[in-house]
Amino acid sequence: MTALYLEDLQPGQRFTSATHALTADDIKTFAAAFDPQPFHLDEEAGARSIFGGLAASGWHTAALTMRLMVTGDVRIAGGFVGAGVDLTWPHPTRPGDTLQVFTEVVEVTPSRSKPDRGIAVLRSETRNQRGEVVQRLTSRMLVPRRPARP
Amino acid sequence: MTALYLEDLQPGQRFTSATHALTADDIKTFAAAFDPQPFHLDEEAGARSIFGGLAASGWHTAALTMRLMVTGDVRIAGGFVGAGVDLTWPHPTRPGDTLQVFTEVVEVTPSRSKPDRGIAVLRSETRNQRGEVVQRLTSRMLVPRRPARP
Repeated sequence: MTALYLEDLQPGQRFTSATHALTADDIKTFAAAFDPQPFHLDEEAGARSIFGGLAASGWHTAALTMRLMVTGDVRIAGGFVGAGVDLTWPHPTRPGDTLQVFTEVVEVTPSRSKPDRGIAVLRSETRNQRGEVVQRLTSRMLVPRRPARP
Repeated sequence: MTALYLEDLQPGQRFTSATHALTADDIKTFAAAFDPQPFHLDEEAGARSIFGGLAASGWHTAALTMRLMVTGDVRIAGGFVGAGVDLTWPHPTRPGDTLQVFTEVVEVTPSRSKPDRGIAVLRSETRNQRGEVVQRLTSRMLVPRRPARP
């Protein structure tokens, strides 16, 4: 496990996560708790909807993406703390999909007012086993600078 | 329950959700599944972190916000289907917080290419019981137009 400080990040670096498979039951359980809409709960309602079949809540895709980022071999020192994100879901996540997250460092900016930290902008694509992008995520992460040696 | 079509939406309309309270156990259960970082799992680790105490994953706050929007009295015809969102978390969500979502319609744009739908931009603030904003969400939602009468 590698914990990265701001000094360790540079634009163009890429990280690839492990994979995570999800089932129809996983999709329905998440939806029942957080996004109880028919197309996330029931195959037939999904088939009649804009999704053309049972589809995971976008928030489920987002949460699984976070899981894959947070449990990976490459971590940010102090943890993944997002100052802000934006998200799109170009394809639905389906039962049986295996997700994987591909992240690229886009920008690294030391804070002007706080010398112990900075902001890294990461762009992460979550892809299914067919290579389709189910989520594009841009995150502005708070990243600590490496503490000076005493 | 009111199902709104694109024609029913106009900039400046406001909707207020019901409320949802969450516990330390809820925070830890969500975090264990989706965002297993120490400050979301353990009070002492939270106290030592940038959050200064146990804090919910931002994705938990986002998922609960969706739950409050989706189960409210005012719903979008065909369901809440987000084309894209952006999110910030100005304050952490804490054990014992009661969340409520305040939404305003910002923009309503019929699709040029698809006469049966459009995009509504909604701005939603999720606030705790002290009125602090724990999440700002801007969503671009796909909204169907009212079908013509036969």
